[in-house]
Amino acid sequence: MQEDTQYRRDKNSVTKRGRTKTPYLGRLNRVRKLLATHNQEGLLVTGLPNVRYLSGFEGSNGVLLIVMDDAVLYTDGRYAIQAHQQVCGVGVTVVNGRFLVGVVEDLKKRKIRNLAFEQNRLTFAEYQYFRQYFRRCRLKPLHQPVESQRVVKNPDEINRIRQSVDLNSRVFDNVCQRAKPEWSELLMAAEIEYEMRFLGATGIAFDTIIASGIRSALPHATPGQGLLSRNSPIVVDQGAILDGYVSDMTRMVCFGDPGNRFRELHRAVGEAQMAAKDAVKAGVKASTVDKRARKVLAKFGLDKAFMHSTGHGVGLEIHEPPRLGSAEDTRLSSGMVITIEPGVYVDGIGGVRVEDVVVVTPTGCEVLTKTPREIRVL
Amino acid sequence: MQEDTQYRRDKNSVTKRGRTKTPYLGRLNRVRKLLATHNQEGLLVTGLPNVRYLSGFEGSNGVLLIVMDDAVLYTDGRYAIQAHQQVCGVGVTVVNGRFLVGVVEDLKKRKIRNLAFEQNRLTFAEYQYFRQYFRRCRLKPLHQPVESQRVVKNPDEINRIRQSVDLNSRVFDNVCQRAKPEWSELLMAAEIEYEMRFLGATGIAFDTIIASGIRSALPHATPGQGLLSRNSPIVVDQGAILDGYVSDMTRMVCFGDPGNRFRELHRAVGEAQMAAKDAVKAGVKASTVDKRARKVLAKFGLDKAFMHSTGHGVGLEIHEPPRLGSAEDTRLSSGMVITIEPGVYVDGIGGVRVEDVVVVTPTGCEVLTKTPREIRVL
Repeated sequence: MQEDTQYRRDKNSVTKRGRTKTPYLGRLNRVRKLLATHNQEGLLVTGLPNVRYLSGFEGSNGVLLIVMDDAVLYTDGRYAIQAHQQVCGVGVTVVNGRFLVGVVEDLKKRKIRNLAFEQNRLTFAEYQYFRQYFRRCRLKPLHQPVESQRVVKNPDEINRIRQSVDLNSRVFDNVCQRAKPEWSELLMAAEIEYEMRFLGATGIAFDTIIASGIRSALPHATPGQGLLSRNSPIVVDQGAILDGYVSDMTRMVCFGDPGNRFRELHRAVGEAQMAAKDAVKAGVKASTVDKRARKVLAKFGLDKAFMHSTGHGVGLEIHEPPRLGSAEDTRLSSGMVITIEPGVYVDGIGGVRVEDVVVVTPTGCEVLTKTPREIRVL
Repeated sequence: MQEDTQYRRDKNSVTKRGRTKTPYLGRLNRVRKLLATHNQEGLLVTGLPNVRYLSGFEGSNGVLLIVMDDAVLYTDGRYAIQAHQQVCGVGVTVVNGRFLVGVVEDLKKRKIRNLAFEQNRLTFAEYQYFRQYFRRCRLKPLHQPVESQRVVKNPDEINRIRQSVDLNSRVFDNVCQRAKPEWSELLMAAEIEYEMRFLGATGIAFDTIIASGIRSALPHATPGQGLLSRNSPIVVDQGAILDGYVSDMTRMVCFGDPGNRFRELHRAVGEAQMAAKDAVKAGVKASTVDKRARKVLAKFGLDKAFMHSTGHGVGLEIHEPPRLGSAEDTRLSSGMVITIEPGVYVDGIGGVRVEDVVVVTPTGCEVLTKTPREIRVL
């Protein structure tokens, strides 16, 4: 995707930029420490959110090489100007012609003899290419070498997520105020996504889920042409991206009265969600939080109707570690930011999910989502 | 992401559904022919657009196993109901607990001894998992075994792309009619994406690019808070998803007069685009089309300012084979649907790109994009 050349590398930029208090130098150095423990000369970062986390680059094609005394971003001509504007603490090399070919050529020049890579962020075909054309180098797969750092957020990141969550709540309020039962699910999704942009979001964190009536029994429904209509509960699951960081919230809304059966389901999910949040604390196993939600739902005879995990990390991505599933032994740490989102889904009747974003603290958690958890009757 | 169970497999569905004239049986059988030439018992399809192409499943987690006398979709509890509603010609197995573990367990029960996989659609970590826990089976990497079929579209697919392209053009017209120079780039993007949904699109094919003034020199600019303002050319690159199929169009708009320098750039790009379209024909090399555009731009002294390829295939994905780059030896075939989108980008001044979607025919091409290619003065 590239035919033009640009080549620049400022070896001093690491030090110079480090002084301006951007987070990148610290993050790169933590990667370097990890490399030292694995006896690796360098790490090839191929996951785009990881590239962004370590360098500031936001384009759709970028690979970051981190070695002990240098770091360089490879990208293509489409991002030549943007890369120089965005990256901080690393050099930029614009690759002409086939991208992997150019990256491997530069790696060869650097005479790297052993190189770690992100095993979850490289395809088998890419791995084979490296093995074939970069034979002199030993490749070492690492499991989430950057995600392991990203999982605990610093105060600035928590603040960005908080702002994203606040924006998401304002979007929900504004759209609820103008929503009409004559809207289709698709139109409601369009209104929400428009409002996000209008309030300054750079995009949506995931395709907005609007599922009304019996379609709410589909946990990941795609909005359709069906109308919202009256007395029919609606799942609204929405998230924005603000300054790179995502939000994620699910609420139930209804034009008129959703009925007693539904109110019962909602009460069960609400109790499960409260119990799960009460269980969150630094040091607690992720599975403990999940089990707490399930236990409450079992009391209501609804544990079989809850067929996904209780939550997931959020940050630069909408699904990050930790996962709050029943078999997850990871222990929560202060500064992790996670969703708590139990739900129940009954085929032919409907579904309920309630979801907040919380920050893990030493004594419990701080709930970032300020929107009331009750059914929003419109 | 799954705790609930559902298990059903309708062995007869292949035949039953085949009679309803859906395209899936034919597509599955073409994969089976390919497997026979490679002496493989089955193919594990892990690329989601490929899963959709072969089965109709639209969820965000699905793996399709195709063997000679059966086909089965693995998904998780979130998609249990949806999968049964959507898939056609294949059985559905809902995996509980860890997804790959469940898939491998089922593969073992089937006693498969050799299995092909999509080498561009499996991560190194996933491959290692299969190698470790499915030792008795030989794994064979294949290069784009499904994309090679998808690259030529059938009349129904071309029709869907045509409708997506038409919707995209209507969106552009409608938004141009109400656009104001006081809008920010972000707001313009929001208006376009809202209009897409309003006219029935299920989503956006990619993040809308709105880049005004000198920012238009960034080929893949992210819309920002900057205002559109007067006499400043604006790149609008937008695409919708309709019924699964994408559209992709770039036009230049301007409030008032963009100035002579810009008109010159636009004329050069327009000529290059015409020349490239004139070169499109079944049997022609992809690189020939790309070179034709470059040759015209060289005449204007602008070949160095064109640093991406001339186009790419579109279909279920926004970037599909074939790629129209200077080193691409692939020959075009009738029924391929591609973009033609030369552009020039001058740092500090601005950029111009003009992009249409065309269908390759035996004698040339049919241009699907009906929006006039001239600068749209608002």
